[in-house]
Amino acid sequence: MQLLKDRILKEGRVLPGNIIKIDGFLNHRVDISLLRAMAREFAALFDLDGLTGVLTIEASGIPLGAICAEEFGVPLIFVKKSKSDNIEGGLYQSDIFSYTYNKKVTLLVSKQWLGTDDKVLIVDDFLANGEALRGVVDIADQAGAEVLGIGIAVEKGFQPGGQLIRDAGYNLKSLAIIDKADENGIVFRDNGD
Amino acid sequence: MQLLKDRILKEGRVLPGNIIKIDGFLNHRVDISLLRAMAREFAALFDLDGLTGVLTIEASGIPLGAICAEEFGVPLIFVKKSKSDNIEGGLYQSDIFSYTYNKKVTLLVSKQWLGTDDKVLIVDDFLANGEALRGVVDIADQAGAEVLGIGIAVEKGFQPGGQLIRDAGYNLKSLAIIDKADENGIVFRDNGD
Repeated sequence: MQLLKDRILKEGRVLPGNIIKIDGFLNHRVDISLLRAMAREFAALFDLDGLTGVLTIEASGIPLGAICAEEFGVPLIFVKKSKSDNIEGGLYQSDIFSYTYNKKVTLLVSKQWLGTDDKVLIVDDFLANGEALRGVVDIADQAGAEVLGIGIAVEKGFQPGGQLIRDAGYNLKSLAIIDKADENGIVFRDNGD
Repeated sequence: MQLLKDRILKEGRVLPGNIIKIDGFLNHRVDISLLRAMAREFAALFDLDGLTGVLTIEASGIPLGAICAEEFGVPLIFVKKSKSDNIEGGLYQSDIFSYTYNKKVTLLVSKQWLGTDDKVLIVDDFLANGEALRGVVDIADQAGAEVLGIGIAVEKGFQPGGQLIRDAGYNLKSLAIIDKADENGIVFRDNGD
């Protein structure tokens, strides 16, 4: 998606450790009009026939998830990362390792809000090692929900997450795939736009 | 806001400890069309002249924050609850006690994205003890940003947060104020709609 790639080139910065910092428009301060354009791009990229919900993961996936859910006219369900006192009863759970926070995290979804009748689009802002996404897919599987597709804003193509999820047979599409990010700049994979 | 109150009465449940469970449409599975109606209600309730951003707190404030930001044509800035490796440089920080997770939490905003030129509307899904909101207001103060108003979806009127924030001089408006929630049901404060 050229609009997103242009924005990354204009405002993104590369920090040591191949960290791509785009928190001025994607995951701390967020430009919602850009997310709206992404949601429309996902509508063009995926067959969303029968969609019942958009599934994302707290916290930084939620803005994109909310706009996608509204765009497609379905509820948003966001996967929680820790148990609050306000969650009761049956839960789907999946343990992942969070590279962002360098610790084990348990993903949770109430069984009330996801089941065998559901057809979901999973969305997230970033895909790198794919641990978080693996957990979300695991929860969808536990629920017996059908995953119609997985839409990612920015994929770090030099980390293994995208390949692992595609090899597992999921229809994963990323709006910008970064194959290289270092002191010389950012190089995108040519993915057809 | 009658639409929200009706939805709470229809789908909400009261759990022991005065916990009001409305996670089927507000803070786990989320009905974005309801949030859009809330954003329009905030537009009617607040003078947003000169608004530069919507400020909210991860995770469950983000869907409402995103829709408000789009509705008002400004960026969303969401306050983070813990330090990730991807945040660098100057940070505004405020320590709060989270009753939801029963532990101390440090709220964080990058100094890059909030400053003395900013005029913000703070929004959140729930207000009870007001600890999270106190932290967000503290961060806005540290940044020298002007708080044009505070818009809350559901306030627990029998807990002290709303009164504390109003007594501190902030223009706080809640779309539904619950004065009583027990085995006999939910009683709303008459706040003029």
